[in-house]
Amino acid sequence: MPQPPPARPPLSAATQVAAVIGTPVRHSLSPTLLNAAFAAEALDWVYAAFEVPDGRGADAIEAMRVLGLGGLSVTMPHKGAAHDAVDARTDVAAALGAVNCVFRDGDRLVGDNTDGPGFVDALVRDEGVAISGRRCVLLGAGGAGRAVARALGVAGAAEVVVVNRSPGPAARAAALAGSGGRVGGPGDVRAADLVVNATPLGMGGGGRAPALPLDPALLGPDQVVVDLVYHPAETALLRAARSRGATGVNGLGMLVHQAAHAFTRWTGRAAPIGAMAAAVATELAGRAPSDGDS
Amino acid sequence: MPQPPPARPPLSAATQVAAVIGTPVRHSLSPTLLNAAFAAEALDWVYAAFEVPDGRGADAIEAMRVLGLGGLSVTMPHKGAAHDAVDARTDVAAALGAVNCVFRDGDRLVGDNTDGPGFVDALVRDEGVAISGRRCVLLGAGGAGRAVARALGVAGAAEVVVVNRSPGPAARAAALAGSGGRVGGPGDVRAADLVVNATPLGMGGGGRAPALPLDPALLGPDQVVVDLVYHPAETALLRAARSRGATGVNGLGMLVHQAAHAFTRWTGRAAPIGAMAAAVATELAGRAPSDGDS
Repeated sequence: MPQPPPARPPLSAATQVAAVIGTPVRHSLSPTLLNAAFAAEALDWVYAAFEVPDGRGADAIEAMRVLGLGGLSVTMPHKGAAHDAVDARTDVAAALGAVNCVFRDGDRLVGDNTDGPGFVDALVRDEGVAISGRRCVLLGAGGAGRAVARALGVAGAAEVVVVNRSPGPAARAAALAGSGGRVGGPGDVRAADLVVNATPLGMGGGGRAPALPLDPALLGPDQVVVDLVYHPAETALLRAARSRGATGVNGLGMLVHQAAHAFTRWTGRAAPIGAMAAAVATELAGRAPSDGDS
Repeated sequence: MPQPPPARPPLSAATQVAAVIGTPVRHSLSPTLLNAAFAAEALDWVYAAFEVPDGRGADAIEAMRVLGLGGLSVTMPHKGAAHDAVDARTDVAAALGAVNCVFRDGDRLVGDNTDGPGFVDALVRDEGVAISGRRCVLLGAGGAGRAVARALGVAGAAEVVVVNRSPGPAARAAALAGSGGRVGGPGDVRAADLVVNATPLGMGGGGRAPALPLDPALLGPDQVVVDLVYHPAETALLRAARSRGATGVNGLGMLVHQAAHAFTRWTGRAAPIGAMAAAVATELAGRAPSDGDS
């Protein structure tokens, strides 16, 4: 049984404020994750969500500066604007041209991107899946796909084959993976150790059969299939993968771990992963499968 | 015994955020007051404090706009900048040139000033003290003094005599009180029904005798003496007034009621005065008499 969290200070004028900016943002799970983390560590912090219109991302970074926010998470559509507006960037944020987490370093605002490290932690720490030396196929080359491509390369993947309808984004994602990166096609899936779906295809949890991002006949035992979607917990892709004997992993672990990295950036502490995962699981259990979230 | 507040929704991405801006702001009682009010009404709102440096008040108003804050309280030194930065002003805010509360009216940010109405409510509603037709002496002509001068005039005081070392500010405060306003001197205290201290003099709660803003020999029974200070609860002035048979009222009621007016501006609801007063009393009971607050 989970233990009750330690007593949390009541909210006061001394409370530090962190927040997520994005639009739409009202279904974000970040407040659930981060408030659970602050409570578990008995930190006098609170985490809110701000609906910031497209085109005002840079102004929201300036608002962080003026109001003295302790930390900021950045989601769609502001990750590029945040990258441009901060005073400095971590290597990963600079490489991706996208910032999902802003932290303070003295008077400077520093932009980071925790999606890739969160993805790796979810696989390696939570699932015991090795990445180093493995052949990986990545479906999709959008923002999440690029973050995963780079993270797989940094984690020592032998190969990162990017499969994407548009060749330009595919080539850019493959380049982020380093020397093991290349553009490929669906035929590469059969030889892969690890298949990552970073497209929205195959989200359907039930009802009519949704379009899948790949032919499940290409999958088999000894493969790990990761779907970055976490709601529903079992997508049509994961169901198909498991029916072929593959191991299926959804995106919930990545969601938790990217938030955990943000927590550590802001507070300097290791994140209470268990408390965060439990809080988000409770929250998701209360949502209909079709609810949007981010 | 106070009843436990109704269950409050857990903080989520749908939670509305209100806040106070100022510097220094870390001892502000506004988070205590407003979070107690939101909790008592089971509203999905949270109230924080942002330390905003002098000179950046207008930027903080812009931050309210960008982040979609549901409400803003403004304290020193930003009340003038907030007055200039909002899209529209209530009559009282325009007259005072100072805004302590910003609320939304559609896409516009409207500046209000709730100090005067809060002062009147504290006297009339909480203490049963009549203002209409009474002769009032006001000591001090700073921001709080001006708000009180105008409020006394609006509430129908027969006379509002402003006593202040600098004649220019005294004349401006007297003008705000309307036709009953005039500049006077300490000798006017003896004939007053109501004496309001809006200076910081006479705060001392114990120890060495602090300088008083008036000679207590001028006070007597049938007078009401209000000190806008609320911490300590009994100032040297109030102690002297009571020893002369006068009724003493401290500034806690004004603090609660100005926040109550802000709550109503933001939420459209009557404020839970009792819950707010109880929360701030509990908070103050835990503070040393010398703690700063605002």
